[in-house]
Amino acid sequence: MGMVGGGRGAFIGQVHRMAANLDGKIELVAGCFSSDPEKSKLSGEDFFIDPDRAYGSYQEMAEKEAAREDRVDFVSIVVQNFLHFDVAKCFIEAGFNVICDKPMTLTYEQATKLREIVNNSDQIFALTHNYTGYPMVKEAKQMVKNGDLGRILKIVAEYPQGYAVGDVEGDGQGKINNWRSDPAIAGISNCMGDIGTHAHNLIRYITGLEIEEICSDLTAFIPGRELDDDGNNLVRFEGGAKGIIHASQISNGDENALNIRVYGTKASLEWHQEDPNELIVKFANAPRKIYRRGNDYISEAASGHGFTRTPFAHPEGFIEAFANIYLAAAQAMADKIDGTPAPEGGYDFPGVDDGVAGLAFIKAAVESSASDQKWVKFPAV
Amino acid sequence: MGMVGGGRGAFIGQVHRMAANLDGKIELVAGCFSSDPEKSKLSGEDFFIDPDRAYGSYQEMAEKEAAREDRVDFVSIVVQNFLHFDVAKCFIEAGFNVICDKPMTLTYEQATKLREIVNNSDQIFALTHNYTGYPMVKEAKQMVKNGDLGRILKIVAEYPQGYAVGDVEGDGQGKINNWRSDPAIAGISNCMGDIGTHAHNLIRYITGLEIEEICSDLTAFIPGRELDDDGNNLVRFEGGAKGIIHASQISNGDENALNIRVYGTKASLEWHQEDPNELIVKFANAPRKIYRRGNDYISEAASGHGFTRTPFAHPEGFIEAFANIYLAAAQAMADKIDGTPAPEGGYDFPGVDDGVAGLAFIKAAVESSASDQKWVKFPAV
Amino acid sequence: MGMVGGGRGAFIGQVHRMAANLDGKIELVAGCFSSDPEKSKLSGEDFFIDPDRAYGSYQEMAEKEAAREDRVDFVSIVVQNFLHFDVAKCFIEAGFNVICDKPMTLTYEQATKLREIVNNSDQIFALTHNYTGYPMVKEAKQMVKNGDLGRILKIVAEYPQGYAVGDVEGDGQGKINNWRSDPAIAGISNCMGDIGTHAHNLIRYITGLEIEEICSDLTAFIPGRELDDDGNNLVRFEGGAKGIIHASQISNGDENALNIRVYGTKASLEWHQEDPNELIVKFANAPRKIYRRGNDYISEAASGHGFTRTPFAHPEGFIEAFANIYLAAAQAMADKIDGTPAPEGGYDFPGVDDGVAGLAFIKAAVESSASDQKWVKFPAV
Amino acid sequence: MGMVGGGRGAFIGQVHRMAANLDGKIELVAGCFSSDPEKSKLSGEDFFIDPDRAYGSYQEMAEKEAAREDRVDFVSIVVQNFLHFDVAKCFIEAGFNVICDKPMTLTYEQATKLREIVNNSDQIFALTHNYTGYPMVKEAKQMVKNGDLGRILKIVAEYPQGYAVGDVEGDGQGKINNWRSDPAIAGISNCMGDIGTHAHNLIRYITGLEIEEICSDLTAFIPGRELDDDGNNLVRFEGGAKGIIHASQISNGDENALNIRVYGTKASLEWHQEDPNELIVKFANAPRKIYRRGNDYISEAASGHGFTRTPFAHPEGFIEAFANIYLAAAQAMADKIDGTPAPEGGYDFPGVDDGVAGLAFIKAAVESSASDQKWVKFPAV
Repeated sequence: MGMVGGGRGAFIGQVHRMAANLDGKIELVAGCFSSDPEKSKLSGEDFFIDPDRAYGSYQEMAEKEAAREDRVDFVSIVVQNFLHFDVAKCFIEAGFNVICDKPMTLTYEQATKLREIVNNSDQIFALTHNYTGYPMVKEAKQMVKNGDLGRILKIVAEYPQGYAVGDVEGDGQGKINNWRSDPAIAGISNCMGDIGTHAHNLIRYITGLEIEEICSDLTAFIPGRELDDDGNNLVRFEGGAKGIIHASQISNGDENALNIRVYGTKASLEWHQEDPNELIVKFANAPRKIYRRGNDYISEAASGHGFTRTPFAHPEGFIEAFANIYLAAAQAMADKIDGTPAPEGGYDFPGVDDGVAGLAFIKAAVESSASDQKWVKFPAV
Repeated sequence: MGMVGGGRGAFIGQVHRMAANLDGKIELVAGCFSSDPEKSKLSGEDFFIDPDRAYGSYQEMAEKEAAREDRVDFVSIVVQNFLHFDVAKCFIEAGFNVICDKPMTLTYEQATKLREIVNNSDQIFALTHNYTGYPMVKEAKQMVKNGDLGRILKIVAEYPQGYAVGDVEGDGQGKINNWRSDPAIAGISNCMGDIGTHAHNLIRYITGLEIEEICSDLTAFIPGRELDDDGNNLVRFEGGAKGIIHASQISNGDENALNIRVYGTKASLEWHQEDPNELIVKFANAPRKIYRRGNDYISEAASGHGFTRTPFAHPEGFIEAFANIYLAAAQAMADKIDGTPAPEGGYDFPGVDDGVAGLAFIKAAVESSASDQKWVKFPAV
Repeated sequence: MGMVGGGRGAFIGQVHRMAANLDGKIELVAGCFSSDPEKSKLSGEDFFIDPDRAYGSYQEMAEKEAAREDRVDFVSIVVQNFLHFDVAKCFIEAGFNVICDKPMTLTYEQATKLREIVNNSDQIFALTHNYTGYPMVKEAKQMVKNGDLGRILKIVAEYPQGYAVGDVEGDGQGKINNWRSDPAIAGISNCMGDIGTHAHNLIRYITGLEIEEICSDLTAFIPGRELDDDGNNLVRFEGGAKGIIHASQISNGDENALNIRVYGTKASLEWHQEDPNELIVKFANAPRKIYRRGNDYISEAASGHGFTRTPFAHPEGFIEAFANIYLAAAQAMADKIDGTPAPEGGYDFPGVDDGVAGLAFIKAAVESSASDQKWVKFPAV
Repeated sequence: MGMVGGGRGAFIGQVHRMAANLDGKIELVAGCFSSDPEKSKLSGEDFFIDPDRAYGSYQEMAEKEAAREDRVDFVSIVVQNFLHFDVAKCFIEAGFNVICDKPMTLTYEQATKLREIVNNSDQIFALTHNYTGYPMVKEAKQMVKNGDLGRILKIVAEYPQGYAVGDVEGDGQGKINNWRSDPAIAGISNCMGDIGTHAHNLIRYITGLEIEEICSDLTAFIPGRELDDDGNNLVRFEGGAKGIIHASQISNGDENALNIRVYGTKASLEWHQEDPNELIVKFANAPRKIYRRGNDYISEAASGHGFTRTPFAHPEGFIEAFANIYLAAAQAMADKIDGTPAPEGGYDFPGVDDGVAGLAFIKAAVESSASDQKWVKFPAV
């Protein structure tokens, strides 16, 4: 495994490394950890990397790694949004599998272009929409697939956070990093791009439903910021289901309160990221059921493939879920090397289509928010 | 106390009677419990009413009670929506105080007219937006008033129920009573009128904020029904706060899951009707606090005036909250009789202005839902 | 209904009155509210009692009420523990039905004697072990009766409170009333008598199991107090089940956290008084089930007989549960008057046998705590 | 790092490996994974071990590793209880640091002997009482240390599980492994040794209090088993606090419901392993506070030293807590190599004293359970 970005002190890079380490099957051996070659070297030392493989630019890394016999099997891209496209394109074209942070690219147009590049290659491309790695999210998806919920009528997905609320009155010391509020680096949205896409992806993953129309009200509560730090969206899905997606960085005291409620004609389900080992299933005329990770009654989709590492009620969390994306992507890569065919139904990790859908969501929400028209058509995903 | 409506088997009439009974200060002594005089008599027997005071029509009741020296102090109106205006007008004009079920009238126009009638009278008029009777809702209101939350940025209020979901596929045996889905009886909305108004009222009660613009998407999921059984609304408040109000009768397995989250610059609060003895207060940089009813640290607003009847952790519920509306309205009536002036800040029960606001909400949501325009101005409240 | 004790400002008397009022079928018309005749009169005024029926002593009340044609149907006894026996005996022998607060008497010996008196009379005797009035406690009992739990192996019942903890360091201003810590008034135990008996009664009510042996460690943490304010008990039940009962008044920050867990070979159940509308049922190999009051799937035992007054998720609480004791006892009294035979399986309210069992528990716990011997035999119940 | 035990399919060995992998600083390079040399080799392949370092016996491993220049820094011992002493002694005496699974030894006598061996060596010895690795457990310990709770009055610690309940009626297919119910392998207790010791250790870790006397009632509910599968214990601590410790493997439907409540004169705290990211703090006269891992207000004790890897509300779980034991022990080893002195207050991982205390608990509980005497003195710890 190689890494682009994620040097000393970078939060998400460290998460990727822990996720990769967890199962003892992936080793970080190369990287370009900073655009400053000196810093890249120093970070390489922190991570026990051979100095020759701590590169000064991603282009150099792609070239030199491609030339090695013991080249890395894949590259993790954890740079800022505006670089995702170039770096991913570079490594895909150099013949490397890629695991890329989300949002996949800066723009919807880049996203569709990257999809073309990936689809025309033989490389594996995984996107770390990490919340889909939680076993009970997989259980929820399986229940929908089984028809346990009946026809889906309504979906509510939320991702409220409060960490930036201090900035609203100007005393929060810029908790939203400058780059996240800079359109040139982050793209046309901050909050919808950073966390709204997670809520949207969770809906797609669990239900398979695509949005048809959206009506958005995005707000920049933090004075002087160009990009949204809060957004409320009404959505209409293909086939007639309705829904709400809202996300916020100024919801005081909320932490990472991502949650989803899916209401069907037979049953509904509810999952909360802050209590991820449980899945609540509700019925009109029967006691509620609490499904708990690690039990024998949990489906293969959630318990198999190494996705569950500890028995029931030995809680698993964020890192384990993140590691499940790595695990599934690494399995796909290993199978490619071995010539093992993909399992029926495919591998269970988010990919380039999820990336396109995420950029479509960002584009549609921003357009709708600026529009006087009630409903904006969702771009093709 | 007299009652119009609420005969044998009527749920809400029975709730009003239990609420009135609880504190041993109000006695039901007269009523017109049904438009069928025979049924009214029989219901009167159930409730230990003197047969002479079990009337065959509300007009008869108003006339005869007005003529008695021991006339009732007030009349509770628990008939179907379309009759509220006529019955309330009749009793107000006959000189009786009135406690009326919500929504206050069939239309916004009736609501403003009833307001005029009430304001031009000397009578007390209370509206049973009963959820504001919960002590911890009162505590929440007090916190906002104290400025504990700072400036309010965002409000999310929900009222999902699932009891009518069976009707979506046609096997629910009409759980939404026919009258609730009949515009002539229920008005222009079912779900927004029945429960959406509760969520709206809760926002107004706690925060004092009025909606400026609304963007609604109402749905009739139950085939063959004219009126909504689900609705999602984006709202913008005076002063810049944003919000979401949604209510539903087809949210499978949800019961009476009314809840509200109010996010301010200093703190946020969260209250759930199904767990009404707790109020959650959240902060960006301090531990969450759980305020629990009946403790010494709870404000006079929530603990005084008889609003709290049992010590902490001896749970109080729906009936006690409902009784608090009766208690406060009865106090106002008693003070009027005694010539005691109203307390500074007034009495704590919903009144005719709340009724107008409720009909404004229904009108705006229905208009917005039918419109292609994104934002609909909220009617004057 | 008449009342002995419970004058102005007495908490439990007020609870009894609210419980009696709730359903509009019971009216307080007589009472001896204080041993001070003047105070009794004044309290009578508060409660709208005919001055002739606000008596100066309970003996006078028994005599005069017995002589009236419109004599009260029953008397509620809410005096201090040491008077229970005398007052109950007096009214039973005067031909009145009795509803009595717990613990039933001052001593185990009085309890067995009162049982004899009651059993030799035709009167109804109800004891307000009010927590058994909660519908979901009734549901739990029904599940055990149905065999849903299989054979019971273990039971844990707790009643931790913290309200007296301030007294431990001497700054709590005597939160445990003097009379509760005075053996002459309260009996041989404070904490076990006041709340330990509730935990014990809950076990008996739900499971029907009687304790065979007990091993207790009672403590008086509050300096200068003779009686326990905390107690931990190991228990062994007839038939081989084991268990733990603990109760405390110095468990800082706990409120009325009565709860019970019953573990059986097929399933286990868990109920918490502070969240009384839910019953948690757990299985070794299936999702947990959450039973919620007011749903159609709840048994007749919990939903019938008027025990459930509001639909699901309109929370019911302490007063409603208390009222269920009154409701069932009043039904028994009404049936006696009408000559209606008792229902198969009897009425569902605690009686004189529960009172004896409660005093047996107090006696055994206190004896065991003072003993070096590990196990103390439980007195006959 | 080397490992003894924990071959293919062994649960706890895999947990140790994940815990060691997580931070990317420890690499498994040698092991004796089975007493069967062939199986040891095969497991070595699974873990990418150099075949020369997959040993056939632990003695061989100790000898050969000791002779290597690149010898392992420490050895993790994850064999069955009865081997702990011999293996630990062997590696300590061969000059290796040791991380050992609990209970530390088969007997109390072995435990004190091992303590002597460790204390006379220069080696680091860590015991995986892993629940003390949870950050919010560390926060709890810090609060007690700060005096936030005042004087401690009462402690209740529970560890109910239900996984073996099926065996009670004989259809559970021996969920308790044979070795756990075999005294020769597991020692004198099954349930108290396996999980009771965790509850006991949690008390000691958080409060620093030692038990003075114990009164136990252990039970073997599973027919034909010699060793306990359930146990209830009353305990008295030095200094006057009282408490309850109970643990069970037949508590149907409970999973790993380890929890602790510590009641002090100023405040009390409550922590549940199944919801490990929260710590509940309760007060007599103030709102409850919910402390949540990863926030800025959390102490250095819980957030520093790498013990917290993800921001608030990105849940951490069992593996991360386990990894914290490895992290702290590895830091101690690194400091020893570097000659860095230990931090003031020492390192934060369980050690040989905790192991002795654990065996003392097992010994005392088993002795007490067999005794007619109420209180048994706790062995020296």
